[in-house]
Amino acid sequence: MGIRLDEIAQMVGGTLHGDGALICGGTNPPDQATPTEITMLVGPNPSANLASSKAMAVLCAERIDSDPRPQIIVADPRAAFATVVSHFRPPIPVSLPGVGVDSSAAIANSAKVHPTATVCAGVTIGERTLVMPNVVIMPGCTIGDDCVLYPGVTLYEYSSLGDRVILHAGTVIGAQGFGYRQKNGRHLPSAQLGYVRIDSDVDVGAGVTIDRGSYGATRIGEGTKIDNQVMIAHNCQIGRHNLICSQVGIAGSCRTGDYVILAGQVGLKDHITLGDHTIVGAKAGVMDDCQGHQVYLGSPAMPQRDQMQIFAIERKLPEMRRELRTLRKRLDAMTEQLADGEPEPGASEPGASEQRETASDRGDAERAA
Amino acid sequence: MGIRLDEIAQMVGGTLHGDGALICGGTNPPDQATPTEITMLVGPNPSANLASSKAMAVLCAERIDSDPRPQIIVADPRAAFATVVSHFRPPIPVSLPGVGVDSSAAIANSAKVHPTATVCAGVTIGERTLVMPNVVIMPGCTIGDDCVLYPGVTLYEYSSLGDRVILHAGTVIGAQGFGYRQKNGRHLPSAQLGYVRIDSDVDVGAGVTIDRGSYGATRIGEGTKIDNQVMIAHNCQIGRHNLICSQVGIAGSCRTGDYVILAGQVGLKDHITLGDHTIVGAKAGVMDDCQGHQVYLGSPAMPQRDQMQIFAIERKLPEMRRELRTLRKRLDAMTEQLADGEPEPGASEPGASEQRETASDRGDAERAA
Amino acid sequence: MGIRLDEIAQMVGGTLHGDGALICGGTNPPDQATPTEITMLVGPNPSANLASSKAMAVLCAERIDSDPRPQIIVADPRAAFATVVSHFRPPIPVSLPGVGVDSSAAIANSAKVHPTATVCAGVTIGERTLVMPNVVIMPGCTIGDDCVLYPGVTLYEYSSLGDRVILHAGTVIGAQGFGYRQKNGRHLPSAQLGYVRIDSDVDVGAGVTIDRGSYGATRIGEGTKIDNQVMIAHNCQIGRHNLICSQVGIAGSCRTGDYVILAGQVGLKDHITLGDHTIVGAKAGVMDDCQGHQVYLGSPAMPQRDQMQIFAIERKLPEMRRELRTLRKRLDAMTEQLADGEPEPGASEPGASEQRETASDRGDAERAA
Repeated sequence: MGIRLDEIAQMVGGTLHGDGALICGGTNPPDQATPTEITMLVGPNPSANLASSKAMAVLCAERIDSDPRPQIIVADPRAAFATVVSHFRPPIPVSLPGVGVDSSAAIANSAKVHPTATVCAGVTIGERTLVMPNVVIMPGCTIGDDCVLYPGVTLYEYSSLGDRVILHAGTVIGAQGFGYRQKNGRHLPSAQLGYVRIDSDVDVGAGVTIDRGSYGATRIGEGTKIDNQVMIAHNCQIGRHNLICSQVGIAGSCRTGDYVILAGQVGLKDHITLGDHTIVGAKAGVMDDCQGHQVYLGSPAMPQRDQMQIFAIERKLPEMRRELRTLRKRLDAMTEQLADGEPEPGASEPGASEQRETASDRGDAERAA
Repeated sequence: MGIRLDEIAQMVGGTLHGDGALICGGTNPPDQATPTEITMLVGPNPSANLASSKAMAVLCAERIDSDPRPQIIVADPRAAFATVVSHFRPPIPVSLPGVGVDSSAAIANSAKVHPTATVCAGVTIGERTLVMPNVVIMPGCTIGDDCVLYPGVTLYEYSSLGDRVILHAGTVIGAQGFGYRQKNGRHLPSAQLGYVRIDSDVDVGAGVTIDRGSYGATRIGEGTKIDNQVMIAHNCQIGRHNLICSQVGIAGSCRTGDYVILAGQVGLKDHITLGDHTIVGAKAGVMDDCQGHQVYLGSPAMPQRDQMQIFAIERKLPEMRRELRTLRKRLDAMTEQLADGEPEPGASEPGASEQRETASDRGDAERAA
Repeated sequence: MGIRLDEIAQMVGGTLHGDGALICGGTNPPDQATPTEITMLVGPNPSANLASSKAMAVLCAERIDSDPRPQIIVADPRAAFATVVSHFRPPIPVSLPGVGVDSSAAIANSAKVHPTATVCAGVTIGERTLVMPNVVIMPGCTIGDDCVLYPGVTLYEYSSLGDRVILHAGTVIGAQGFGYRQKNGRHLPSAQLGYVRIDSDVDVGAGVTIDRGSYGATRIGEGTKIDNQVMIAHNCQIGRHNLICSQVGIAGSCRTGDYVILAGQVGLKDHITLGDHTIVGAKAGVMDDCQGHQVYLGSPAMPQRDQMQIFAIERKLPEMRRELRTLRKRLDAMTEQLADGEPEPGASEPGASEQRETASDRGDAERAA
């Protein structure tokens, strides 16, 4: 399945700088690429992504002198990358599967597939795995040993499960990510050529959706447990032994460390990173990266200590407002008292403040009307 | 299928004012009715809804002199309207479908239906449309050309899809809306006689639910894209080219303009309207109508600029509270200083204020206990 | 099916105090046990739970002298209870069902089951109940009269439905609850030996998930209506005639009274109780018990009146902050004025306050950076 770098250069019509005889074994985004894979560089600061990447080679728009790796220079690295991705994982045209198990599927002897399930071309299923009624497994999926796919689960093409993975009823793995670009007033889907990789010992609840990556994998780390109705968007890299409670929504390209806990209905903004042992309280909305070994609460989420203090003071806001009014009145009285004794220039200030508040109150009323 | 207005009056036992020979072609709520359809008026201010309606005629409880259209006066317009709706779109009793494709279904030659799918009476399916395993299409549905219905999709009766509509796995279109009225301590379902209409070029993610209208259509406009696990309630009118992100919930009878964007986990209160190009940030809860071409954040949602300012100040609340205490102490000291110089009546005020705060603090403690 | 208490003591290797000839008819947690059932005591204050329980006997770690009921003393009451639970409701090994209706299922004559549905061993289905395409009913489920199970519904083992229960498409009843304990850095599932009991006249929307109890039932009370995409976790006891709107999430072991209303996207923390006629507004996050006959809003949720006042003041926070600054400046000016008249020691205070604010501002900036 490997291919020479000079063949890749030819395939994408690019200029190769480096050893063309090197064999490339696959494709991945910079942060996921292994030392036998090629990656691509796009975005505002491409070379920063390259420095921390393990990729063997890179598709880019301009020569990057600071990096010694082989480089293939192309006009549109994204399009060229899609071409190479498609070489290694050919896009499967949407088509109607046959009934039951396709003849090209490799099902272990001890695995059991219900007669109402649909297993498409090129699927492999490991020992003792159970495929329950009405499960649909699209082409190119690989499923390990001792997995259980409960009724009505759907795996889109190229989804990959480790061993002892449990998917509860109605869960959908590998649907297209929600990515569009606008052209002439219409939303056109961006490339969704990736797949979902779920490592061993992951439990996934009922009614969960995990979307495929754009080019590489959306990945769920070993031992992570996911509750019902969770949504994990394209390109997320979920760590090991996470606990993700019900109705959590994780937007695209997020990363969590190990032993992260997300309580019910938490939302994560796209492209953020949560360190190991981060805990996020129920209903919190996380808008920024979170350091590990801390608890975050609220929306926008803050460290627990800060947020608890703010929650407590919010409950005292009516009192604070009354106190503020009392202070102003006392100050007005004192100003008057001092003015009576000796005239001073600041005496007109209270009136001005009064006026400002009145204007502001009117503004609020208008907004509410 | 058309019917004369005097026949409708007879059907509902009402009194017709106007030309009974006019042919009525269908039914719809006031805001959706076309010039060949009859509508009904209920609610606190019925004639206001009529003014902006294009309906050819109206069912109402009292004669509305200000409107020149034919009117049929009945005791219970809602019940009468349900009768007329049922004439045009006869309610289908819940019953068990047969296996596979019903003989009365009209499937285009180039369409493909999986043998495990269920296609009920009177369904039409357009050219090149794919119906994947375990899809269920209930009676009276119409599906355009080049649609893809992924595994496990369910369409309830009379659902209607344009061309190039994609429904991902497990999505449910047209279930009964969540409407009940209470009688003798029990919740009785209100009429859910409508349907769902999804226009062309709409993508719908996995695990989405869109409920049918009460009398007319819940409608999704052309080109709109809907992410996984979105909920759209009965009677909503979603505009064209919207982007509705994952886990958004839209309560009943909402309206969105064109090019509206709702970020993840947003909630919309029932019966609100969002103008064209409205953007609502993640997790926001929209409680009021929103003007278009603006960004809204927070819950309750506010224009971005106001909300960002409030978020920033909320982070400074502990500091504000400290400042407030410092000011009070300084004022107390100054009051005392002035009192030392010359006795004045306001000197007892600080003590009173102190006492008030103490009482308030005790109230908080009791509430927390 | 009954068993003597001395037989139970022998089964779990415990010491019985009380009448061994009494017949025990089943098992349940303390708050659900009937006078013919045995329960168990664990937790920080076990005897408190016992006082209000109707159980006939109890498994516990130490003799409770204050309670006259028969007691079986064991080293690990939880494990012993699991053993007794398994006697009455033997765990069903996960295995592949046959095709169609199992020969041991008892289907009423007037009930109708679609040929694509799967009905497992020991299932009973009442009169006139409809089981739509692709429904899966696992072993030991009992379904009453006049129920409708829409396409793709899955009932896990031992689920139990009353009469006139409607389950819309894609809903999953009885999946394992989300309970894990950590051991050697891995999450191990805790016992999920219970089931789901849905009483009569309950409607459940599309895409809902209700998890089974740990030992006893997750229960939905008579006449309650549940909208689409609701999640109800293990051990919840939902009251009668509740209205639970779309995308509500209820964490484990919550209890609601009768006529409770939860608006869209509400979240309930685990182990809380809502009194009869509690109303919770959209998107609220309930963190504490709620007294009945009240409306709660916000997150963390508060009584409506308090929360509305706080929402209103939050909108005025920018103004309050300006007012605070104005007051400080006036006070500074006054302090200076007084100092000019006669020197006083407090004159250095404003500077100190200024410095403190500056430090605090820097802290905020660092956090934002």
